[in-house]
Amino acid sequence: MHQFRNDYSEGAAPEMLEALIRTNGEQAPGYGTDSHCEHAAELIRAACGQSDAFVQFIPGGTAANAVCISAFTEDFEGPILAADAHPTAHETGAIEACGRRILATNDALGVLTPAEVERVYHASIAGGCHCTRPAMLYFSNTSELGHVYTRAEFDALCDVAEELDLAVYVDGARMASALAAPGGDLTLEHLAARADAFTLGGTKAGMLFGEALVVSPRSKRGRRAIDRIPYLTKRGGHMTAKGRLMGVQYTAAFTRGEDGSLPYFAHAASANECACMLAHGLEDAGFEPHVHTNGNQQFFWFDSDDAVRIVEACGAEVTPAVDPAGRDRILLRFVTSWACRPEHVDELLEFVRGL
Amino acid sequence: MHQFRNDYSEGAAPEMLEALIRTNGEQAPGYGTDSHCEHAAELIRAACGQSDAFVQFIPGGTAANAVCISAFTEDFEGPILAADAHPTAHETGAIEACGRRILATNDALGVLTPAEVERVYHASIAGGCHCTRPAMLYFSNTSELGHVYTRAEFDALCDVAEELDLAVYVDGARMASALAAPGGDLTLEHLAARADAFTLGGTKAGMLFGEALVVSPRSKRGRRAIDRIPYLTKRGGHMTAKGRLMGVQYTAAFTRGEDGSLPYFAHAASANECACMLAHGLEDAGFEPHVHTNGNQQFFWFDSDDAVRIVEACGAEVTPAVDPAGRDRILLRFVTSWACRPEHVDELLEFVRGL
Amino acid sequence: MHQFRNDYSEGAAPEMLEALIRTNGEQAPGYGTDSHCEHAAELIRAACGQSDAFVQFIPGGTAANAVCISAFTEDFEGPILAADAHPTAHETGAIEACGRRILATNDALGVLTPAEVERVYHASIAGGCHCTRPAMLYFSNTSELGHVYTRAEFDALCDVAEELDLAVYVDGARMASALAAPGGDLTLEHLAARADAFTLGGTKAGMLFGEALVVSPRSKRGRRAIDRIPYLTKRGGHMTAKGRLMGVQYTAAFTRGEDGSLPYFAHAASANECACMLAHGLEDAGFEPHVHTNGNQQFFWFDSDDAVRIVEACGAEVTPAVDPAGRDRILLRFVTSWACRPEHVDELLEFVRGL
Amino acid sequence: MHQFRNDYSEGAAPEMLEALIRTNGEQAPGYGTDSHCEHAAELIRAACGQSDAFVQFIPGGTAANAVCISAFTEDFEGPILAADAHPTAHETGAIEACGRRILATNDALGVLTPAEVERVYHASIAGGCHCTRPAMLYFSNTSELGHVYTRAEFDALCDVAEELDLAVYVDGARMASALAAPGGDLTLEHLAARADAFTLGGTKAGMLFGEALVVSPRSKRGRRAIDRIPYLTKRGGHMTAKGRLMGVQYTAAFTRGEDGSLPYFAHAASANECACMLAHGLEDAGFEPHVHTNGNQQFFWFDSDDAVRIVEACGAEVTPAVDPAGRDRILLRFVTSWACRPEHVDELLEFVRGL
Repeated sequence: MHQFRNDYSEGAAPEMLEALIRTNGEQAPGYGTDSHCEHAAELIRAACGQSDAFVQFIPGGTAANAVCISAFTEDFEGPILAADAHPTAHETGAIEACGRRILATNDALGVLTPAEVERVYHASIAGGCHCTRPAMLYFSNTSELGHVYTRAEFDALCDVAEELDLAVYVDGARMASALAAPGGDLTLEHLAARADAFTLGGTKAGMLFGEALVVSPRSKRGRRAIDRIPYLTKRGGHMTAKGRLMGVQYTAAFTRGEDGSLPYFAHAASANECACMLAHGLEDAGFEPHVHTNGNQQFFWFDSDDAVRIVEACGAEVTPAVDPAGRDRILLRFVTSWACRPEHVDELLEFVRGL
Repeated sequence: MHQFRNDYSEGAAPEMLEALIRTNGEQAPGYGTDSHCEHAAELIRAACGQSDAFVQFIPGGTAANAVCISAFTEDFEGPILAADAHPTAHETGAIEACGRRILATNDALGVLTPAEVERVYHASIAGGCHCTRPAMLYFSNTSELGHVYTRAEFDALCDVAEELDLAVYVDGARMASALAAPGGDLTLEHLAARADAFTLGGTKAGMLFGEALVVSPRSKRGRRAIDRIPYLTKRGGHMTAKGRLMGVQYTAAFTRGEDGSLPYFAHAASANECACMLAHGLEDAGFEPHVHTNGNQQFFWFDSDDAVRIVEACGAEVTPAVDPAGRDRILLRFVTSWACRPEHVDELLEFVRGL
Repeated sequence: MHQFRNDYSEGAAPEMLEALIRTNGEQAPGYGTDSHCEHAAELIRAACGQSDAFVQFIPGGTAANAVCISAFTEDFEGPILAADAHPTAHETGAIEACGRRILATNDALGVLTPAEVERVYHASIAGGCHCTRPAMLYFSNTSELGHVYTRAEFDALCDVAEELDLAVYVDGARMASALAAPGGDLTLEHLAARADAFTLGGTKAGMLFGEALVVSPRSKRGRRAIDRIPYLTKRGGHMTAKGRLMGVQYTAAFTRGEDGSLPYFAHAASANECACMLAHGLEDAGFEPHVHTNGNQQFFWFDSDDAVRIVEACGAEVTPAVDPAGRDRILLRFVTSWACRPEHVDELLEFVRGL
Repeated sequence: MHQFRNDYSEGAAPEMLEALIRTNGEQAPGYGTDSHCEHAAELIRAACGQSDAFVQFIPGGTAANAVCISAFTEDFEGPILAADAHPTAHETGAIEACGRRILATNDALGVLTPAEVERVYHASIAGGCHCTRPAMLYFSNTSELGHVYTRAEFDALCDVAEELDLAVYVDGARMASALAAPGGDLTLEHLAARADAFTLGGTKAGMLFGEALVVSPRSKRGRRAIDRIPYLTKRGGHMTAKGRLMGVQYTAAFTRGEDGSLPYFAHAASANECACMLAHGLEDAGFEPHVHTNGNQQFFWFDSDDAVRIVEACGAEVTPAVDPAGRDRILLRFVTSWACRPEHVDELLEFVRGL
């Protein structure tokens, strides 16, 4: 059966793979100084509506977070983020390895809120040089638990950041899914107009690997970060010798297809569609979602026997969480990718109904 | 004209590319826990004659060095290496970013010698806790200036390391070229039998990206490093989500072809052949090499006018060095890859002869 | 009026100052290799009943925490501690500066509990190399909010640490006060017999500066830490050139006086007495304590007008906390030192009663 | 016999000790926020002729170097210094522990030269983001081998730094001795007028401990460093709770005595006098100096038998060095402090003559 374990199970989506094959024999200068990277950056700037944005391609998401958070902070400063955000939950101290301390809020479900940002900010600032100085906000869109930020939620975080003079960095490992989510009202242009930095994830959007870190030179801190990022990327061991591979894939992802759409978002839309189809099917079958989301990650509660069978069948991952119903149910995560088709979802739903 | 700038200008060699295409649609678990990585590790162990060796795939060379050097050292320990070795010359402080101090020798041309190792070791140890404690040797094969270590040179370094209880780590970004070099007498089996750790570079040997870090569990320090490496790899941001891509490429590289050879070494042999053909041609044309080597990097001295034209024509890189002849000649580096063909060399030689 | 701001307002207690004056002219070898440090270590070992304990003198508490936590962890490991413990609340990322990630529990009032230790441990371990690996417990005695650990609480933490194979490190910046607290049943001998490491703070116990970090060689991890500590102390910039100053003061503090008591604890007992006298007086006057403690820090709630006057008068510090009564009361911290006398307490109580 | 091992063998010089005793009972706010530190900073500014200089008191020299070098560099930048300068030779990687890479020149005897600064600068800059970016010069006055920089040498280094836009930081662990050296023409005023930062060492100038780090707000980088230093000092574990102790000692050291001199320099002058008296005596007795200096460190060559006896007698330290005469002579370092008297020198010279 098709696996719903994650969105990085397969290789590259057709356009990306085809572009890699087509350009394989070319000789290009190394470390991202080639024309493919330059062209991809141009296409990304255009899609963002930010003609002077800085773009750095970085092979992975943990690396992109470490580079960007270091770039926007001093040694003794840190990012404010939700306690169960990726950098605290699953990166083995990658931020601390850069000497930075994370300032975690008490926000539930990894969704950052202005109130918690303010509380943590003031508690830290009150200590003066005896406390880590807050310098930026970090949140992922979609969040670790699938939340798709609305334009209002995003603006509220940008407002509090502006008021407190903090940078805003949005981890976009699943940004394609977030911006393509049905009912979502946050646009790439608006995101790019207000965030100091964000990533447009490639790995989970149909590329072999790659994250595009986009930084705005609007502010002084942004210009400082832009000066720092190439050095921090190299120092972190993230400057890919055959960097052009990312340029080639992003060029394919941001070049409009015959139907006028960008493959980057088209693939995400199809993944979201399958995920929503799965969610509705599971709800119809009487299963309870943990959160409602239109992104490509869906979280549902199951009794343990069912959970075991489902995991075996489709590779859904067990997500550590406390059952709000006070029962011992298990929370499973289902993830779809560009490679998922409606018939795959039907097959899974049939299996689940048959439990 | 074909470019001789470096050995990471092109994409993947035929077998690697074909394997990536063939497996593109497969769904595999992430982060290198898939069967392709497992199989590739098996093939590498077999080629090394070390059935219990640990293999970690890491996307790039700077990352592999940072992970391996951290894995074999305590916070206050460091590697002994030649002053112009890659970690000191071209990695923007990647080792220091891990909190480690490098103990550089005065060896010329980046070729580490037992005498300098002993001098630096004793000078450091004499200071007790007031000095960084030496814990390992680092050297690259081929070296930054193309040196191919002989078996005797390698053994002499292993002997001094044994005597001083230091780990031996060989950076093999160009190990394929080194082991396939005409006249070379160091074998992979012998290397694997004596070194604590080494890499089998993929990026410069026909893969899109990837280094295979091989570590021996023979010693206590090796077993400690093996426990540490997966954590350090993740913490450094080097654990590739679609890790299977490296497994797929290394499987192709270490699977014997119809002629019974391993593509990993066959491609290196052809690159070396072209490089040697170029070197002989340049010497015949009266140009002076900086060092004699049979690897895929060749270094020759040119008057500045010629140098400019050659750089324009074939992308050879200017290498900072002092002209031993006391003239203002420029040192150019010519590098060949799996994609270089004899006719490319002929074309370049013709151009040079015509200067 | 006498100030109750903290326990490091004054210089040295009589015995320590007198010893410094007496030995001022002596010539001693540097960096703690002198006979005073040796003698002091002997006296500390005797007081702990641990003849083979390792003792490292370090000038300050933040430094001692950074050295000890680094010494007991690998780069990718971290300590489990309560969210508002000193290293997370007031050390500007000193632990993260060592590349270590802190694993914070949800324990209230900075008092670590076995249940939270287990929860955090299992959540981290479940992630394998994708999460920071827990390696030790950290808690302060007395805690940041004045809690004095009972023998039962201490044993329960040691039991869970044993079960999970974690090291136990007790930050003893105020250990003298904790062990001398009326009604306390935890002894130095028992502490030393079960903890892997702890500090006997000097700065807050009547010395000009200095913390004695005591480490047990019972376990393999302890022996590893002992090998690491001198290097980490020097690397951190904490190896005092005139290290003998700490040896001289600790010798004085741990040499029995005419009445047979150790000045280290005698001064703490007198500070505790004054603090308890103050607490009872405040309660009699109708003020509410935040926690009940017999240590030298007392925390009481006041209406803001009163709080302002009290702060002005005696330097009590405002402690950030949420009023459990839901009112806007302010929490004040009163701290006593060896220099505090009952008449000072009377004067303050009179002032408070007069509000 | 009086020991000539180093200048931190004794406690505090009379004025400093007396001031500590006089103020011991005072209650002062912690962490250097007290009036003594404020007054001492004022006196230092006045002595430097820099009314707006920033002064941070730090307990030790390695700590001061780590804080100041971090303060003036980005994560991926480093200081240019002589290969055998203190941070590379004797600080166990304290700078690398801050994630910074040191860019070492080939200068002999730890004396930095403009030519080497330029060479290292251009070699690093040429690599762009593939190399550590040079950001500052570091040198010690007096140097590790006793060199006293002349005003011309200092100006030449400031000139090259200005030309290359590098900060200038002078490690003044022995600045008192350097500025008080007979025949020296570099003044504190001139130093303060051109250096971005320097320390006025206390530990080796008659204090129990303490370095005064002085930073100029003239430049943008200086103002950035001033913002960073308090946080880096705390984060490094170098913010002394009883910080007033340094304020008290520096106030005493920079308050003119009855004869109108500053004790800080008066004690250094007397130490230098004894050192020069010793040097002349040794030369008269036919021994060869390694370098000629008027500072308080003297280096002489001895046959090994004599060396052993001298070390036993007066604690002179063996300094690792290659005998220029090609013999196996041993280099001994003799150091004098404020506590050394001419009769001590006579006694030693008599002993040496009697060998």
